Amino acid sequence: MSLKDEKITRRGGRSARRTARINAPIVHHPALVPKVPVYEVANAEGVEQIHELAMRIVEEIGVDFRDTESLEFWRRTDAEISGERVRVGRDTLMDLVAKTPSEYVHHGRNPERTVAVGGRSMVVSPSYGPPFILDFEGVRRHATLDDLNNLQKLNHMASSVHIAGGPIVEPVDTPVPHRHLHMAYSAFKYSDKPIIGNVTAGERAEDTVEMCKIVFGDAFATNNCCTTSLINSNSPLVWDATMLDALKVYAANNHAVMCSPFSMAAASTPASNVGTMAVVTAEALMAIAFAQLVRPGSPMLFGVPAMTVALNTGAPVHGSPDSAIVQFLAGQMARRYKVPHRAIANCATSKTPDMQAAYDSMWGLFPSFLAGAQWITMAGGMVEGTLGLSYAKTVIDFEQVDAFYHFCQGCCFDDLDEIFETVKEVGPGGHFLGAAHTRRSNLFIFPSQNNVSWEQWDLDGRKDSAQVGLDKARTWLERYEEPEIDPVLDEALLEFVRKRESEIPARLD
Amino acid sequence: MSLKDEKITRRGGRSARRTARINAPIVHHPALVPKVPVYEVANAEGVEQIHELAMRIVEEIGVDFRDTESLEFWRRTDAEISGERVRVGRDTLMDLVAKTPSEYVHHGRNPERTVAVGGRSMVVSPSYGPPFILDFEGVRRHATLDDLNNLQKLNHMASSVHIAGGPIVEPVDTPVPHRHLHMAYSAFKYSDKPIIGNVTAGERAEDTVEMCKIVFGDAFATNNCCTTSLINSNSPLVWDATMLDALKVYAANNHAVMCSPFSMAAASTPASNVGTMAVVTAEALMAIAFAQLVRPGSPMLFGVPAMTVALNTGAPVHGSPDSAIVQFLAGQMARRYKVPHRAIANCATSKTPDMQAAYDSMWGLFPSFLAGAQWITMAGGMVEGTLGLSYAKTVIDFEQVDAFYHFCQGCCFDDLDEIFETVKEVGPGGHFLGAAHTRRSNLFIFPSQNNVSWEQWDLDGRKDSAQVGLDKARTWLERYEEPEIDPVLDEALLEFVRKRESEIPARLD
Repeated sequence: MSLKDEKITRRGGRSARRTARINAPIVHHPALVPKVPVYEVANAEGVEQIHELAMRIVEEIGVDFRDTESLEFWRRTDAEISGERVRVGRDTLMDLVAKTPSEYVHHGRNPERTVAVGGRSMVVSPSYGPPFILDFEGVRRHATLDDLNNLQKLNHMASSVHIAGGPIVEPVDTPVPHRHLHMAYSAFKYSDKPIIGNVTAGERAEDTVEMCKIVFGDAFATNNCCTTSLINSNSPLVWDATMLDALKVYAANNHAVMCSPFSMAAASTPASNVGTMAVVTAEALMAIAFAQLVRPGSPMLFGVPAMTVALNTGAPVHGSPDSAIVQFLAGQMARRYKVPHRAIANCATSKTPDMQAAYDSMWGLFPSFLAGAQWITMAGGMVEGTLGLSYAKTVIDFEQVDAFYHFCQGCCFDDLDEIFETVKEVGPGGHFLGAAHTRRSNLFIFPSQNNVSWEQWDLDGRKDSAQVGLDKARTWLERYEEPEIDPVLDEALLEFVRKRESEIPARLD
Repeated sequence: MSLKDEKITRRGGRSARRTARINAPIVHHPALVPKVPVYEVANAEGVEQIHELAMRIVEEIGVDFRDTESLEFWRRTDAEISGERVRVGRDTLMDLVAKTPSEYVHHGRNPERTVAVGGRSMVVSPSYGPPFILDFEGVRRHATLDDLNNLQKLNHMASSVHIAGGPIVEPVDTPVPHRHLHMAYSAFKYSDKPIIGNVTAGERAEDTVEMCKIVFGDAFATNNCCTTSLINSNSPLVWDATMLDALKVYAANNHAVMCSPFSMAAASTPASNVGTMAVVTAEALMAIAFAQLVRPGSPMLFGVPAMTVALNTGAPVHGSPDSAIVQFLAGQMARRYKVPHRAIANCATSKTPDMQAAYDSMWGLFPSFLAGAQWITMAGGMVEGTLGLSYAKTVIDFEQVDAFYHFCQGCCFDDLDEIFETVKEVGPGGHFLGAAHTRRSNLFIFPSQNNVSWEQWDLDGRKDSAQVGLDKARTWLERYEEPEIDPVLDEALLEFVRKRESEIPARLD
């Protein structure tokens, strides 16, 4: 074989390996059961101090429930109600919170994607809510339904993401009153993972449950968790009617809801990690307890986005050491109350998928996984606070989530004797590359991390990771294969969407 | 005042605030004493299993000391020596390791910069060794002495970096036999923080100690830690003559040395986190014990770069979940042996200061700080594995180090009553922006994190964080003020450099 032939063969080999990698079947990891311990920033006394402060807040200051019907629920308890303000004693509050399951099952339309949430089981869900997209041409524009569908596809292919959206982006080209229908359809159509529900109005939550009935059957969908939704309080200490309406619908059907105080330390919560944690604990516990008044045993999650406000600009900031402290504290408080903990993987203040964006995200990723959060939102792509999502960053972030999944497998002590024999065989000055033990290794390599020489990288066009991410997202969309869906079910969902579209005015007057 | 006037005043105000920020005096943080606990990935039994495996390696397989003089030191013990191979019983080894101090003082030429290393005290040191620089024009080229001087200046201004270089970059334009002289001069001249020593030959280590004698006085510099140096083993299980020569010089003078097995899992160590840890524990303990034979009580550090090898390309990879596990384990082993733990903050496989570079770095930063490493190297700038350093990334990374310094201050429980009163005063639906408690807050904001609106960022030229970093590095170099140095001392150092340059041939023949 000539040198030239060899070169061609080698190239063929490399290209063949790349093709094999690209065409490898999609792997769906089960819910993560971490083998590493949780990290805690406060000691037991600190946790009790935060609890005590939160209890003083609910007992002495109270929380506003800005919805007449919701106040009626509170009147069934010994809470003290004054206008919209609800003050409740800790015994009543804790009795209600105790009814929330510490672990529950969230069903996917494909039973193989159904996951346990809570206990030792951790799941990851996609990004949520950004109205802007950094698209394949590098343009920032309003996101569309096509973008949402694309992102459902990418999300479906992400090994360590267990949940479908939800508004991975807001499909801004779809009329608000119809958006929830297309959102649920997009999730059911392009993925078979468990889905996120809509919370922008009570009747939209009801429509979402109706669509679950089509997929899962009436009795099942009204008694089992078929969606998980996200409601935000208006921190400090206010729950508004829209969020409460959605909460009532989902709780009544036994679907799960994440209570997420919209905490921005220094603005909506105190400029203190402990103070923020106490206020959001008060808010979250009140919503969790409220859900138990609607339906005892309805699954709820405890968590907090933990932003801070930059006092120089007044802007909310994602990704900071203060937020990280709060995320760790939230895990400790959630464990104290035996409610599954929801954390936020990935929100970047940066406007573009750059170095700062990754640093910002890591201040969420590490605390989410090390806090042992049982539900980790915002798996990938967030930029510009909560306003933008980048295709490029989405797929690069997914690799980080895979890396944390790997990290959480922890240490391996199963092969100590084989390791000793291998070290002995290799001996001082040898190498392990050819060892049988090495060939079976599963060391983690980031697929998009460029580990060739600088010269090779230069020859290959000096792509930075934003470009690599865009290429990968494009390739993934080409490779995407729709999960099987019964055509009858598909048509029934579409028919429901069409019917409701015809019933609901496209504009709000 | 007209609207226009107000606008001008506001602009003036913003610009004035920015100028004030830029001209703020340099803050030098003391050594970090963390108020957060360490994170451990293995339980006590796991630590003992790794110890046991390491002991089997030193007893049954042994470690090569490829230096006749070093073998003579081992002959004073009951070690079994066969050729270059040293096998030593665990009792002898542990008795020697126990002589290493768990805490020591590293002196800076300015006593205010002197730091404790070990115990609860953590210090951060700059990057080490890259021959290439990504310069201010975005060009990758060989680093020069000017670059090293620039980086000493930037490093001197970094609040949370306690140590001066060392070869922050390799000054490739300086002849190798003279490089150590200029390296030590650069550190002493442009910073007054404690310095890193040279290890490329025994006589170069001696020259470095000679320069310490000029700075600190003969008796002081031969009995107190005035440099910390870094020696790498040739994993697996080999210490070579060059590294041992340098170690002997520094240990003899009571200067500190970091023993850093050059572990690349799957190549130079087993493809296993536990296996890698056992091999590098064996290597590091042997060097630490050896130093105690040279001079009992000489300070040593235990740590490991914890790379992995990408089996698809054979390239070493920095920044991975496997490395993170090993870094956490290294902290646990160091605590077991009561030797200060040295970890690696920041090595990126990426070629350029992009998203991946930041992700890679965070896989070192979080484990370094959460492992409670008492010496954290590679504070900023690394790209391209250990080969390149980016000015832009250097200053962005310094902000991350500041953020970890802040994170390690942990939770604040001092002001619970004030927080309660503030929450009560603000009440549901209010805000904390104007509260007295908020005005005293110290929430962390990354100076280079852009938190303005997208529109403002667009108007400002859409700078990504690599560009922001370059601008900041330039501004810092303009702002830099040389720390005071006695002109007599400065001239004495320069004279020594000139003398040795005249004595040592610039080329090795």
